[in-house]
Amino acid sequence: MSLLDQYAITRALTEKICSALEKEDYVVQPVADVSPPKWHLGHTTWFFETFLLIPHAVAYQPFNTDYNYVFNSYYETIGARVIRTDRGNLSRPTVDDVYKYRAYVDKGMAHLLSCGLSNELLEIFTLGINHEQQHQELLWYDIKYILGHNPLFPAYSHEKTIEDGLKHAEKDWLVIPEGIYEMGYKGSDFTFDNELGRHKVYLNGASISTELVTNREFKEFIDAGCYTDFNYWHAEGWDWVKTNNIRSPLYWHNVDGIWFNYSLGGLVPVKDDQPVSHISFYEAWAYAQWSGHRLPTEFEWEVASDKFEWGQLWEWTESAYLPYPGFSKAPGAIGEYNGKFMVNQKVLRGASVATSPNHSRNTYRNFFHPHLRWMYSGLRLAK
Amino acid sequence: MSLLDQYAITRALTEKICSALEKEDYVVQPVADVSPPKWHLGHTTWFFETFLLIPHAVAYQPFNTDYNYVFNSYYETIGARVIRTDRGNLSRPTVDDVYKYRAYVDKGMAHLLSCGLSNELLEIFTLGINHEQQHQELLWYDIKYILGHNPLFPAYSHEKTIEDGLKHAEKDWLVIPEGIYEMGYKGSDFTFDNELGRHKVYLNGASISTELVTNREFKEFIDAGCYTDFNYWHAEGWDWVKTNNIRSPLYWHNVDGIWFNYSLGGLVPVKDDQPVSHISFYEAWAYAQWSGHRLPTEFEWEVASDKFEWGQLWEWTESAYLPYPGFSKAPGAIGEYNGKFMVNQKVLRGASVATSPNHSRNTYRNFFHPHLRWMYSGLRLAK
Amino acid sequence: MSLLDQYAITRALTEKICSALEKEDYVVQPVADVSPPKWHLGHTTWFFETFLLIPHAVAYQPFNTDYNYVFNSYYETIGARVIRTDRGNLSRPTVDDVYKYRAYVDKGMAHLLSCGLSNELLEIFTLGINHEQQHQELLWYDIKYILGHNPLFPAYSHEKTIEDGLKHAEKDWLVIPEGIYEMGYKGSDFTFDNELGRHKVYLNGASISTELVTNREFKEFIDAGCYTDFNYWHAEGWDWVKTNNIRSPLYWHNVDGIWFNYSLGGLVPVKDDQPVSHISFYEAWAYAQWSGHRLPTEFEWEVASDKFEWGQLWEWTESAYLPYPGFSKAPGAIGEYNGKFMVNQKVLRGASVATSPNHSRNTYRNFFHPHLRWMYSGLRLAK
Amino acid sequence: MSLLDQYAITRALTEKICSALEKEDYVVQPVADVSPPKWHLGHTTWFFETFLLIPHAVAYQPFNTDYNYVFNSYYETIGARVIRTDRGNLSRPTVDDVYKYRAYVDKGMAHLLSCGLSNELLEIFTLGINHEQQHQELLWYDIKYILGHNPLFPAYSHEKTIEDGLKHAEKDWLVIPEGIYEMGYKGSDFTFDNELGRHKVYLNGASISTELVTNREFKEFIDAGCYTDFNYWHAEGWDWVKTNNIRSPLYWHNVDGIWFNYSLGGLVPVKDDQPVSHISFYEAWAYAQWSGHRLPTEFEWEVASDKFEWGQLWEWTESAYLPYPGFSKAPGAIGEYNGKFMVNQKVLRGASVATSPNHSRNTYRNFFHPHLRWMYSGLRLAK
Repeated sequence: MSLLDQYAITRALTEKICSALEKEDYVVQPVADVSPPKWHLGHTTWFFETFLLIPHAVAYQPFNTDYNYVFNSYYETIGARVIRTDRGNLSRPTVDDVYKYRAYVDKGMAHLLSCGLSNELLEIFTLGINHEQQHQELLWYDIKYILGHNPLFPAYSHEKTIEDGLKHAEKDWLVIPEGIYEMGYKGSDFTFDNELGRHKVYLNGASISTELVTNREFKEFIDAGCYTDFNYWHAEGWDWVKTNNIRSPLYWHNVDGIWFNYSLGGLVPVKDDQPVSHISFYEAWAYAQWSGHRLPTEFEWEVASDKFEWGQLWEWTESAYLPYPGFSKAPGAIGEYNGKFMVNQKVLRGASVATSPNHSRNTYRNFFHPHLRWMYSGLRLAK
Repeated sequence: MSLLDQYAITRALTEKICSALEKEDYVVQPVADVSPPKWHLGHTTWFFETFLLIPHAVAYQPFNTDYNYVFNSYYETIGARVIRTDRGNLSRPTVDDVYKYRAYVDKGMAHLLSCGLSNELLEIFTLGINHEQQHQELLWYDIKYILGHNPLFPAYSHEKTIEDGLKHAEKDWLVIPEGIYEMGYKGSDFTFDNELGRHKVYLNGASISTELVTNREFKEFIDAGCYTDFNYWHAEGWDWVKTNNIRSPLYWHNVDGIWFNYSLGGLVPVKDDQPVSHISFYEAWAYAQWSGHRLPTEFEWEVASDKFEWGQLWEWTESAYLPYPGFSKAPGAIGEYNGKFMVNQKVLRGASVATSPNHSRNTYRNFFHPHLRWMYSGLRLAK
Repeated sequence: MSLLDQYAITRALTEKICSALEKEDYVVQPVADVSPPKWHLGHTTWFFETFLLIPHAVAYQPFNTDYNYVFNSYYETIGARVIRTDRGNLSRPTVDDVYKYRAYVDKGMAHLLSCGLSNELLEIFTLGINHEQQHQELLWYDIKYILGHNPLFPAYSHEKTIEDGLKHAEKDWLVIPEGIYEMGYKGSDFTFDNELGRHKVYLNGASISTELVTNREFKEFIDAGCYTDFNYWHAEGWDWVKTNNIRSPLYWHNVDGIWFNYSLGGLVPVKDDQPVSHISFYEAWAYAQWSGHRLPTEFEWEVASDKFEWGQLWEWTESAYLPYPGFSKAPGAIGEYNGKFMVNQKVLRGASVATSPNHSRNTYRNFFHPHLRWMYSGLRLAK
Repeated sequence: MSLLDQYAITRALTEKICSALEKEDYVVQPVADVSPPKWHLGHTTWFFETFLLIPHAVAYQPFNTDYNYVFNSYYETIGARVIRTDRGNLSRPTVDDVYKYRAYVDKGMAHLLSCGLSNELLEIFTLGINHEQQHQELLWYDIKYILGHNPLFPAYSHEKTIEDGLKHAEKDWLVIPEGIYEMGYKGSDFTFDNELGRHKVYLNGASISTELVTNREFKEFIDAGCYTDFNYWHAEGWDWVKTNNIRSPLYWHNVDGIWFNYSLGGLVPVKDDQPVSHISFYEAWAYAQWSGHRLPTEFEWEVASDKFEWGQLWEWTESAYLPYPGFSKAPGAIGEYNGKFMVNQKVLRGASVATSPNHSRNTYRNFFHPHLRWMYSGLRLAK
């Protein structure tokens, strides 16, 4: 596929995800971890403008120099940032302005790509594509949060949605023999720095389930009173449960004794045979404790991953998000990408129904803080 | 004027104030005290629907029963409320939906008014009109705050705005002789309960300025270092200054040594001859201390008010917001209107350029917490 | 009485109040409004050292120059302060050190007083005495809070305590005729600046109760569900009730359906015939609303005060704490005494069983924020 | 050594550490992570009373049944706890009462030990000893914090202190060859559950320094402006630096350009040749980044530990605190000991000058949150 096609397809998908939104949906930020869809649209565009067009496109004029301030995110090397919780206060630029910004940058990119890219620029371009794909997934999380926390519970769509991909698998235990294994990315295509370098680990032997824990099973955990029994929780998890009065996965609502679930199609009864989703690491770990099992490590997961189906939900692992042996940070703003987050976060492996096509591999290391659950997260047991 | 005309004019003005907005401007809530314009549009409509149409209009069907939850404000008697800081998280109902809601209720009201109103309903109707006028003024405050806290500093309008009404007056001192005066509303037109009952007060003699303190004078206060000298401040005012790092009135920005001011027309140099606006009670009081004067009481203000021009800015007084002798709360939700706020607030007298036509009188008692300044507030000296 | 006797008696009473304490009781600060007893002992001493000995006693050497930092309170003019909530973190100076400090300053003061005082110094001396008397009363509040919030509920004393002075009075209504009255202090003895100047007010006529509301009556308010009914509360009072989960006066504990009360003698059943104490303004006002009455203004209270018994509890009034006509702040640190607190506070009139002898008069204006209740506060009705 | 001797020596050491304190020092809690020394004295005693005497000593009468509420810590299975930040508000029980409690329990323990212990009780006894040793180390941290955050900077002692043990070592790099290693405790003496089970890991080869980073070296990091350059920090570390305005290790004070250090002997100039101490993980990691190295993993540290000197300071590692393969939680309250903390914390290896004799081994896994630094923590580089 040509670079231009690759670019055009990626950019179009972002806009397709947003096409079901009302203008008002683009603007709000109900909690700090959620960004307004408008911001995602601008920020992914800002990436191409800042790292490719401004430094490398001949005679390129920035669309609006104030936008760096508005659409920058965590890149401390590129000037002042809007503090993160402020994003939801900004009514301007308008949604129409942001789409104009996208069109303007797309035109600049089309021109730049038509001239061909050096290897160095190709690398940045590919990172930009992968970056936008990551934000496509975040858009799903954030849109669901925005609509799912509105008292009117508006549906994203009344048609088939990505969530129809959530299915039940066969239950079995796969044995992982003790021994030395090689881990990390070994191909030559694009990969994030956190998947490198390829290195050996020693596994002490384990079994891992072929199935994600289902809503039916998770209801048993609820019915057993586990949300009110500290025995199954980390000390911090228990504080989180009490402080936030957690009683079920995110988006679950108990209406007259029946569990309902806000889905992209609206508020519907919980489907027992779907894997449980939108749970925090604390909940995943507590479930594992209660059921007499444990979570797999990211290495166990990677080793066994070609023997089970994955890709429906990001799967919490016991592993902390740490650098692989030999990891080194790239220089400059690009180098801020992953390494700076390698503390206090947990690795999730796999992919989800919200992950963009061609944006998954079994060495991919996703990561979130243990209390978060607005992403499509689930749970696979090990022992 | 017929009730229907009165209604139509009021409702039209609200929409005219919003007509310069982009859809996105209707949605955001940068701080808890500011409400999204969309909410004002819905809330004022909810008032007529809840207190007139639903209980009194034959065969009226509510537009959407969920709206009570969304557009209720502080009326604890009318079911569950959205907690105030959440208003800015709600992308739905959309702006178009809210305008449809307005049109629907307007139609219901036209029908109800065409049948004539009993005295009891007339009283509620008049309260609804005055309530919407109050929200018209709040709309100005909130719109200015939303645009004035956007890093792009968008203008509300490039034409003449209400702020062009801010003018300099002649400086003089009016003497108020010692003696007994009658205070409070004495006519038979609409008045808020807090202006009643008419009663006597004894004034010990004072002088009051004919002029509001100007930007030029306030710059001297800044230049004298008063924002960094505790001597001129209440203890709580000084905490407020330090905690929030206050160095000037709201909307002032010092750019390379020149003071600029965000106005409805955009960011412009401060106009020396305009009265200083958007100041807190703490700042007003500190200025008075520094200049060797004091703030008038609300009674001094009322007595002298027919001898000076007022109406440009709400004027902070030294008076706390307390019930007049004989004040009594109306029963039911209407009774929650004013009395419940009579603690920890200061009275402001007059009116402002943002006050709706026919919504001012010299007995009107406006009130705000002493740290607030997003309203059009100013300062007149007494001694 | 000689100045030296006056000084010695005052200083001795402070130490007598503390004589029942364990060393550990001197140190802690359970909430920001409570100061460790050790701090009161030091701070009152610091006052005499700072304002009399250091500037005016020949050849006086400060006890320890670091103590200014430790024992200064709100006097911003006298160098850096320890921020208020930090007082409870300071284990040094020790209690023994603080008593040594007191003895050292007492010796210095004895010498200074033996030489006679100019009128100017006499004024500061008298303020110092009254200042220490105010802290004697605060010591009672703070000691009660410290012991009463300890899970062991230790008694301050098993003998008769000041709380035995809390008695029932006869119930009657006194009529206050409409007319002009003179208010404020008019003698020539010591008075606080906030009681000046003497001025006229016009009262519109009222009745005031001869009796404080009793525990028996207050239990009816509780039993009527008033702590869970917003109708009786200010909006801010209602927020306070909900945020802090208030269900009764401070120090009340419901044990198996019986109301107990932490008293200086330990945990005992609530005595029905005593006046209700340790209530906030919000609670006092809510009780008045519920009972169909109101709180008196401070002027009504002052006018009628020679016709009823007062002095058991500080009595909340409806009046905000504001300057009297003609009030002016004294220059320098002494001038920080009262004026800077004249915002967001309510006036309480009378005195309490914790008030020091000779430290009360019917023009005395005590003041607290409306949510506070660790002081000996009570409630008298008006109508 | 007999159990009784072991018990007596441990108990005596705890009291010896506290013997230099004033009574007031026992009571305060300047921040939530610091506990009052009084609480440590009571809590370690409560452990023996609760887990040995009450369930297993014939006819034992608890000293005071309220003490469970006061001296319980994180053991959720043993009834209600005092919330942690409240400990510093409790003036009672007094220090004398707590020493009486210790003596009472010591007498009970002497009797119990004289009768011999079953294997099960021996295990609890040994845990109790190790538990008290851990609190001995915490006592050092907390005492230093209490005295070092007092504006008078009182010395703990003017004699030689444990901090005189902090010395410079030779600088060299030790090579750790690639290969499989066995980790975890393998003896039969007491060990914490988190050191089990013994298991294999694969190391990819590394070098580790023989020397801890010194104050001299850390000053270079400061002088290079690293506390104001985000490039060297984790995103969360950078937030921590900015939010808390961090500019140096804890206890460092820059006085007129010279760095001073609060030590147990008082405020003294920083000693260049001592290892830098009281640094957070964020600071350790930032230093490693800046110097072009990295932190060792806990496994690298354990493998190399017999080739360098350790024991002066707890050494931050890159490893997250996670369960070893095969780890399982003990049942009951004892089982709450370690496993519940295995999230969001970092492993520190070694021991410190504050560690009790016989309470260290090279498999010991200490753990703290990455922002903490009131413990004796330091830094060893790897590459």
